[in-house]
Amino acid sequence: MAVHGTRMLVNLHDYEAAAREVVPPAYFQFVAGGADDHVTLDDCRAAFNRWRLVPRVMQGIAEASLATTVLGHPLSMPVLVAPMGLHGLMHGEGEVATAGAARRAGVIFTLATSSSRTIEEAAAPAGTFFYQVYLYRDRGISRELIQRAVAAGAAALVLTVDVPVSGNREADVRNDFEAPRRSAMAHFAGGLFAVEGTGREVPERRRREVALTFHDIEWLASLTGLPVIVKGVLHPEDARLCVQHGARGIVVSNHGGRQLDGAIASIDGLPDIVEAVQGDAEVLIDGGFRRGTDVLKALALGARAIMLGRPVLFGLAVDGEDGALRVLELLRAELARAMMLSGVGDVNEVPRSLVRG
Amino acid sequence: MAVHGTRMLVNLHDYEAAAREVVPPAYFQFVAGGADDHVTLDDCRAAFNRWRLVPRVMQGIAEASLATTVLGHPLSMPVLVAPMGLHGLMHGEGEVATAGAARRAGVIFTLATSSSRTIEEAAAPAGTFFYQVYLYRDRGISRELIQRAVAAGAAALVLTVDVPVSGNREADVRNDFEAPRRSAMAHFAGGLFAVEGTGREVPERRRREVALTFHDIEWLASLTGLPVIVKGVLHPEDARLCVQHGARGIVVSNHGGRQLDGAIASIDGLPDIVEAVQGDAEVLIDGGFRRGTDVLKALALGARAIMLGRPVLFGLAVDGEDGALRVLELLRAELARAMMLSGVGDVNEVPRSLVRG
Amino acid sequence: MAVHGTRMLVNLHDYEAAAREVVPPAYFQFVAGGADDHVTLDDCRAAFNRWRLVPRVMQGIAEASLATTVLGHPLSMPVLVAPMGLHGLMHGEGEVATAGAARRAGVIFTLATSSSRTIEEAAAPAGTFFYQVYLYRDRGISRELIQRAVAAGAAALVLTVDVPVSGNREADVRNDFEAPRRSAMAHFAGGLFAVEGTGREVPERRRREVALTFHDIEWLASLTGLPVIVKGVLHPEDARLCVQHGARGIVVSNHGGRQLDGAIASIDGLPDIVEAVQGDAEVLIDGGFRRGTDVLKALALGARAIMLGRPVLFGLAVDGEDGALRVLELLRAELARAMMLSGVGDVNEVPRSLVRG
Amino acid sequence: MAVHGTRMLVNLHDYEAAAREVVPPAYFQFVAGGADDHVTLDDCRAAFNRWRLVPRVMQGIAEASLATTVLGHPLSMPVLVAPMGLHGLMHGEGEVATAGAARRAGVIFTLATSSSRTIEEAAAPAGTFFYQVYLYRDRGISRELIQRAVAAGAAALVLTVDVPVSGNREADVRNDFEAPRRSAMAHFAGGLFAVEGTGREVPERRRREVALTFHDIEWLASLTGLPVIVKGVLHPEDARLCVQHGARGIVVSNHGGRQLDGAIASIDGLPDIVEAVQGDAEVLIDGGFRRGTDVLKALALGARAIMLGRPVLFGLAVDGEDGALRVLELLRAELARAMMLSGVGDVNEVPRSLVRG
Repeated sequence: MAVHGTRMLVNLHDYEAAAREVVPPAYFQFVAGGADDHVTLDDCRAAFNRWRLVPRVMQGIAEASLATTVLGHPLSMPVLVAPMGLHGLMHGEGEVATAGAARRAGVIFTLATSSSRTIEEAAAPAGTFFYQVYLYRDRGISRELIQRAVAAGAAALVLTVDVPVSGNREADVRNDFEAPRRSAMAHFAGGLFAVEGTGREVPERRRREVALTFHDIEWLASLTGLPVIVKGVLHPEDARLCVQHGARGIVVSNHGGRQLDGAIASIDGLPDIVEAVQGDAEVLIDGGFRRGTDVLKALALGARAIMLGRPVLFGLAVDGEDGALRVLELLRAELARAMMLSGVGDVNEVPRSLVRG
Repeated sequence: MAVHGTRMLVNLHDYEAAAREVVPPAYFQFVAGGADDHVTLDDCRAAFNRWRLVPRVMQGIAEASLATTVLGHPLSMPVLVAPMGLHGLMHGEGEVATAGAARRAGVIFTLATSSSRTIEEAAAPAGTFFYQVYLYRDRGISRELIQRAVAAGAAALVLTVDVPVSGNREADVRNDFEAPRRSAMAHFAGGLFAVEGTGREVPERRRREVALTFHDIEWLASLTGLPVIVKGVLHPEDARLCVQHGARGIVVSNHGGRQLDGAIASIDGLPDIVEAVQGDAEVLIDGGFRRGTDVLKALALGARAIMLGRPVLFGLAVDGEDGALRVLELLRAELARAMMLSGVGDVNEVPRSLVRG
Repeated sequence: MAVHGTRMLVNLHDYEAAAREVVPPAYFQFVAGGADDHVTLDDCRAAFNRWRLVPRVMQGIAEASLATTVLGHPLSMPVLVAPMGLHGLMHGEGEVATAGAARRAGVIFTLATSSSRTIEEAAAPAGTFFYQVYLYRDRGISRELIQRAVAAGAAALVLTVDVPVSGNREADVRNDFEAPRRSAMAHFAGGLFAVEGTGREVPERRRREVALTFHDIEWLASLTGLPVIVKGVLHPEDARLCVQHGARGIVVSNHGGRQLDGAIASIDGLPDIVEAVQGDAEVLIDGGFRRGTDVLKALALGARAIMLGRPVLFGLAVDGEDGALRVLELLRAELARAMMLSGVGDVNEVPRSLVRG
Repeated sequence: MAVHGTRMLVNLHDYEAAAREVVPPAYFQFVAGGADDHVTLDDCRAAFNRWRLVPRVMQGIAEASLATTVLGHPLSMPVLVAPMGLHGLMHGEGEVATAGAARRAGVIFTLATSSSRTIEEAAAPAGTFFYQVYLYRDRGISRELIQRAVAAGAAALVLTVDVPVSGNREADVRNDFEAPRRSAMAHFAGGLFAVEGTGREVPERRRREVALTFHDIEWLASLTGLPVIVKGVLHPEDARLCVQHGARGIVVSNHGGRQLDGAIASIDGLPDIVEAVQGDAEVLIDGGFRRGTDVLKALALGARAIMLGRPVLFGLAVDGEDGALRVLELLRAELARAMMLSGVGDVNEVPRSLVRG
């Protein structure tokens, strides 16, 4: 059992509490915080408790099989590391450590555009990894980044669509967090965001495409042949349109409560999206997952896998790659236990009747 | 970013907290308080959280257009300053400052009958402004006041109908607030409420018409030709009757929780009223608006614009006209952001499906 | 405005807080407390907030008429003083004071069997009063008491049916309250409950009939010709049976949360009972009433009047008859205000659409 | 009235509070705690408050008859002592005391496999008792234990099916509770769990059958002829299958919130299971029962009897056999009172209409 000071780290909440002690407050708040009044952030947790489990017994299950695939890539459990920026704020190793932890855990790592380490540095220790993409108004920037990701071995592209503008994270405003944010990115971005012909640099986010359309999915898909997963969908009509325009996966997400405060909890949006997609794309989800039972509920509601975000960073903060790995392994153990206690033997066969909303 | 002492003022809640420090407690409580047990006051905020957003993505929206009209008058955003009495309690400039802030923000100012400054003083710095009306048993008093308002440029009359008697605001009773209230009004009212033939003055509210009928809308409309907006409607049948008797606008309102405690939250009453009115009048709403997402929810449910009340006074208290303006600009920025994050490009085209109740 | 020490007494809650300071804790807890875990006691208040008001405006109401009748007896407002035992614990005058306050307020007083003062003492200052009855296994005792009440002028009998056994009021157990309870009753009961032929006295409640049946209504009605009101009904089938057996009134009641913890709030039981009774009896209600809006909600749901209990005793504790009167007058003022703010001109014509459940 | 220090012990909550003071914290937490975040543990209590009582009056009930049967065995009230491990942690007498208390109270004692005392020791003072069974992978172990239980007089077998793996009780992990748990069991198990041919012992739970199937019910039933009750069922389909495979009773249970956190409260699962079983087996229930009204609600929803768990151990901790008995007698008194206050004369005839969900 891992410990931190006198604290035993027996669950993901413990890692959050320990990380709070390790990391400078402004950095911790950047990771842990949400938009506006934290209505959606808080509801992401509360929503899980509104969905209750009605477990089965005596199903003859000797052990729980957690292995699955996402877009054909094997995972040791239905968990991916969510794309998150600036792992370097939590630990000097940054994405190198979290990518390594994901590989050791047998799960897919999603490398964020806003990483603290370069694509090549993060890709080296990773196993299967996806690359998270923002489109830039200058599509050439996007093309260049994506080509580097493809060259580094990315297996899919995750297009984030819920950040046309930044969410209103007031803790970051109060903490004047913009400066450390940019400096943490500089390592990755190098001179990339220099404004052409001026020698002047602008923040990366100023160059992003604000007015995405569903046709951008097609463009992105055509660029590399890699499958495109669209992340940040809550409305079933959008999910349908994504699939029509070539998305191979959907991530039901409110960006961890960091963008539109008052948006529905992602678990509450999942059932309608699963129904809308009708099996034509794989449906992933993130937002508030802290317990194995949370994962099991999402699977019962039709998710193929979940993306785990902040807890991985808390593990990273507490103990680097080992800490991030430990977080993933805790969740794995909890999911396995929840399956056994629910009479579910295979993550690919979780019945809908297991949850009552 | 505005600051107050060591407090950064990043949202409307901050202005409330700062105003609490600046203003004498009895004055602050007069503005911030509500009737009885604050059931409705508190629910006005809580109700927004029962309505959740299901945002759209990839709608090709490059920027959010906030401009709209109310009764044909252009506004830079779907926000009016609500009629509130006694701005002078918050700041010496009183309505002169708030009217100026509204003009600078490009929104309509609603001047209350119970103002601290005269109609003419408040009208001078205002852009488009509406005049809030109580009917008096002596209709001559009403006529005189309204004629002054028309002469000063009022663009519409807002008839308040939910104050046949005062609400039971117990903080005001405990604070013995009646005296400062009257003295703050004296500046405006002058000798107006002298009892004829006696030389004795009575409080303005003693002269008000208690027994309003829908025919009073017709009388008021006939008086000046200005459009009449009826403020204080929660029952759909009343909204229908208002329109039948000539109202051009309805303000769905529980008077900020200051009148009938236990009344439904205005946002909860909005859908039925929008349906009852069937587009024959413009539907406005006030009550508890503090966030851009609150405004967006009201627009999705069919409001044409919202009226912002107490936060404007908190801004006024903190920094005079600039403070009131800053409050309006904060709300504008939040609304614009909420629209971008919801895939909504135009305040006049907010889809009903954006909210889930 | 009444004051108590430095406390202004502006509402019924204030009287409760002031009474808590005046009365010995065990006596206060006897009055204020409820059964078991106070689930029903607390829900009696909470339930009112689940029923919300949708007020009307512009109804041409110049003033609210509160006068009504109960079983043909005029009341100045739709409020009766509920039957409660042992007023003498609150104030030396006991029922003499509360009966006087009721008369001065123009409301009906209900004298409890377990009174601190004799029937004759309490009846003297009362206006119209009802007499609350427990049936005794020895019906002769009941007959004797009821004949005294009739002789003293009682206008109706209120048969309490929800105390086959005492509720489990744990504060009273912890406070060893039984002794003061009996001694307070001794003044009233005199030798009445002597066990025949033994010279030994037993507590009054040991003599009560446990196994009431609906036929007891008929017996009671035949005894005096006075109308019988059955108090303590929550199930609509029981209300129907009461009426079939001759009850002229029903009091929807959970005995103020003092008997069966977990019972529904009386306001939640009211609609079904009103429907079951179909106008064949008058429906009263008690339980948790503290605000004029509470009364208005009950009227909208079909109650003819409400019974006010504990607050009258709190008023009595604070200032004797004047205090009890002040409590009644506060509620009257609140009800009148609530009616004006709801567009309701007459307590006998409160529309069902005023409340939304 | 029992007391503990200065505390009067008037209800089951009091016994919990007193036990907390008596027992080493780690032992208390082992008994009182639940899995993960205590969502289900807490909801087991909260759920009772979501079911409300609509009592009957005037039913002519002179006293409440609590006697009933379970599988033909008479009980003085519809309560059994639930199977719980390690009573010896609470008091040196362990199961000998609780079994004696159950006999004195006239209720059935359920002896757990994980007892602190041997089967024979616990059976001696017991009246009618059931024996709780875990199946072992080596069915010979099960056979041997069950034969001992039969020889000792067990009247039924209670097969626990919701522990294929242990629940995640984090307090036990933090308290490093495994060692005292095993040593408390050693007294009972003796050399039973020695690994054949090695001289090495392994923890009892390592030998349990994980992959139970419904056919195990048949095997168990055939072993002794004793009726089999299946404990730990929440899904109605499982209840149906249990009955088809020969179960004579079902215990609706989430194992007191100790196994799958997020599982529905047992009282919430009861109605569907009663409907599924259609009278072909007796339905028992445990989980969160603390008040007589809780028992009454379960009976109204179709349970034949309830199993009382932790409170019996709290009574044991406070005052040995007498304490455990006092807990049972308190619950009996509360149930009798609740029945009288609900117009219910017989525990075998509690109408469904008594509860509103």
